[in-house]
Amino acid sequence: MPATPDAVFHCELAWLGGDEPAAGVRIDVRDGRVAAVEIGVACPAGAVGLAGITVPGLANAHSHAFHRAMRSRTQVGQGTFWTWRDEMYRVAGALDPDGYHRLARAVFAEMVLAGVTCVGEFHYVHHHPDGTPYADTNAMGAAVVAAAAEAGLRLTLLDTCYLGAGLEPDGSVLPPRPEQRRFSDGTADAWAQRVDDLRDSASVRVGAAVHSVRAVDAASITTVAAWAAEHERPLHAHVSEQPAENDQCLSAHGISPIALMESCGALSPSFSAVHATHADEIDIALLSAAGAHVCMCPTTERDLADGIGPTDRFRHEGVAITLGSDSHAVIDLFEEARAVELDERLATGVRGNHRVRELMRAATADGHRSLGWPDAGRIEVGAPADFVTVSLSTVRTAGTRADHALAAVVFAATASDVTDVVVAGERVVRDGRHRSIDVVDELDGSIRALWRAVEARA
Amino acid sequence: MPATPDAVFHCELAWLGGDEPAAGVRIDVRDGRVAAVEIGVACPAGAVGLAGITVPGLANAHSHAFHRAMRSRTQVGQGTFWTWRDEMYRVAGALDPDGYHRLARAVFAEMVLAGVTCVGEFHYVHHHPDGTPYADTNAMGAAVVAAAAEAGLRLTLLDTCYLGAGLEPDGSVLPPRPEQRRFSDGTADAWAQRVDDLRDSASVRVGAAVHSVRAVDAASITTVAAWAAEHERPLHAHVSEQPAENDQCLSAHGISPIALMESCGALSPSFSAVHATHADEIDIALLSAAGAHVCMCPTTERDLADGIGPTDRFRHEGVAITLGSDSHAVIDLFEEARAVELDERLATGVRGNHRVRELMRAATADGHRSLGWPDAGRIEVGAPADFVTVSLSTVRTAGTRADHALAAVVFAATASDVTDVVVAGERVVRDGRHRSIDVVDELDGSIRALWRAVEARA
Repeated sequence: MPATPDAVFHCELAWLGGDEPAAGVRIDVRDGRVAAVEIGVACPAGAVGLAGITVPGLANAHSHAFHRAMRSRTQVGQGTFWTWRDEMYRVAGALDPDGYHRLARAVFAEMVLAGVTCVGEFHYVHHHPDGTPYADTNAMGAAVVAAAAEAGLRLTLLDTCYLGAGLEPDGSVLPPRPEQRRFSDGTADAWAQRVDDLRDSASVRVGAAVHSVRAVDAASITTVAAWAAEHERPLHAHVSEQPAENDQCLSAHGISPIALMESCGALSPSFSAVHATHADEIDIALLSAAGAHVCMCPTTERDLADGIGPTDRFRHEGVAITLGSDSHAVIDLFEEARAVELDERLATGVRGNHRVRELMRAATADGHRSLGWPDAGRIEVGAPADFVTVSLSTVRTAGTRADHALAAVVFAATASDVTDVVVAGERVVRDGRHRSIDVVDELDGSIRALWRAVEARA
Repeated sequence: MPATPDAVFHCELAWLGGDEPAAGVRIDVRDGRVAAVEIGVACPAGAVGLAGITVPGLANAHSHAFHRAMRSRTQVGQGTFWTWRDEMYRVAGALDPDGYHRLARAVFAEMVLAGVTCVGEFHYVHHHPDGTPYADTNAMGAAVVAAAAEAGLRLTLLDTCYLGAGLEPDGSVLPPRPEQRRFSDGTADAWAQRVDDLRDSASVRVGAAVHSVRAVDAASITTVAAWAAEHERPLHAHVSEQPAENDQCLSAHGISPIALMESCGALSPSFSAVHATHADEIDIALLSAAGAHVCMCPTTERDLADGIGPTDRFRHEGVAITLGSDSHAVIDLFEEARAVELDERLATGVRGNHRVRELMRAATADGHRSLGWPDAGRIEVGAPADFVTVSLSTVRTAGTRADHALAAVVFAATASDVTDVVVAGERVVRDGRHRSIDVVDELDGSIRALWRAVEARA
């Protein structure tokens, strides 16, 4: 006789991994994990009924929480990736642990409302603005950890090594500019020493990141990669987001950013190449041979005019794609998923490159694996009980039949169609509302406070 | 002493045409038009208060209402524009006046909820499936007209001449395929005779359309263009959506589709080139010289793998851009507006090509003008009292300050953030609900009924 479940959910439809969802799916939860899955059954008495289609929790594999404060503001006037970055530095300069905690909690709560149950925070605002450490050297990371716990989602804190301001022709990196000082630990060894103090918990994993080949020299990349390998941690890095980065890397090292990562021992199944927009065939072969992931952030790549990444080539070569909302111009993993396919259509003139189930896997199991949660992002016995229900009764999804309900999630739904979000068996979102956070109010308050701080520093 | 207004609205913020919205805007309405606009005033007693930012009613300049039934269904498997079209013909074949009325009403109501106050329906399903006319030869057009009236938005019925199945090397068009018979009036003269019976009303304008150079020969394009000019009607045409169309036109006529339109007398300030994705510099110069519009449908152009149109070139040459949701894979004019800019960024690597106010003008005044409503799409005395309020208190728009509220509408808001829609002074949508239609229920019912009809015919 199996033990009594802590909770029972009954899904009108649930996606269990194939092309079409199953109907009448009972999910029993015990100790925060899926204890049983039964298909084609009626809703038992006492179960929580979930109308619409339920899918595994979504993994947002690349986030900079504080960029949310820039939404809409950076759309006025012209510019490039590089002018956008200057504006971003102004905001980063005004963060402190309290303000960061408050903003990140609101942003993570916005993510939970959108169905995100696990976020990879690419975290590099480590120290006081002048570069001196906080009394608790991980005060900023602790702010992010607390924010995620309160928002109710899993976190992989991708603690980022960020040492310099650009690549020199001799392969060294320039010292940080004043506005970058707070990002830098000085050396990769000092980075590792600080990160050694961070601890996992039931809902938090610690991971590593290399900011980019512009910000970290090859020897330091090697140090970070060795740390990640030794501690069996995910390792993420921004690579080949802009052509200028490829050009500088080629001048300095004679190879591409991804090839440099490979030569530093960074590539492995635990590695995620973030963006890789301008990856070439050699890069793709390297990622494929290593079993690495590539994290696409299409709404950000549109916003920052990065270009269209070679996602169909990644797919062909077996490089698993994951998704990130990155700069949070938009927080909607369905929009990211469809954008992978739609932008590929723009580039190739062909429809149906990425299958719906592949795009959903990118948003769920593959994203989780890239963040160090290999058993999450799937609805099956033993997996963390994380799942998300999308209404099929909104103006966007009305008229959907079961056999194309998964396509409706990817191609028609928006974040606002998420009704229920369960994390570790707990119902964090119910009927579109967060269980404990007034998300609009907290976004408003934390963003306004941050901009007051930005202006006070000016 | 001015006459008492029929209604008074008070907007927290309202966009009156500049870069930033005005605060505290009172709008008086009489006889369905704006009677007075006052800025910087408190909300008077008895006024309807509109929190957030109010913008002019949106014009959806290119719609095929029945395509809404295909949302999500066509995303399964691979294909091209041309295989998608075969699926679309199956749906078109199953329409009848009642089913069309029911579906179009639901789809137009979905548009109204998204802030659309005027739609251009590119209408070519005219006759019985075998091509014989209905007893009322405009029964299908009447269904569309009734649908728009019940949904509560303005309609330009772009009655479309559609005669054949593809361009022959000698410039003739092939006879319609069986599934196209119901689109064809046989000749352009017969088309004109039927359309002569259609009448305008307070909320309806009759316009003309040429389906494409694939479906209408040059002499017939000339006939339709002459009819439109004589009757001072808008004239729309699909042009250069796919490279194959350009190639065929060049073989048959030695010139591009837009140049062919020009040679047939179609280009004028009343002309809209729909898509023009593969327009070249000569085409752009022709459209510019004529003062014509170009209607971009970016979410459809992504979906159908058409490519990225040269929108920055259009802007530089003074060709006014309008927006359409076309196949209704998405109904969200904010998404269309930002997609014009974001896809241009993907193509050029530069941010901020189209200014926010220009994108908003595309969605409002320019769209209306292209549909034959030159005084609509603006909040000013004498204009139709059509406006739309977007909440700045949703998770997407929270944290927005007045000076970038317009950017938030274009770059952050979605259709689900529309709270109120006023058409001719009447509040058709209030707090996100349509005044008379259960939109989800009607979409569900009408789409399911249509697919039952499709399957019954198979």
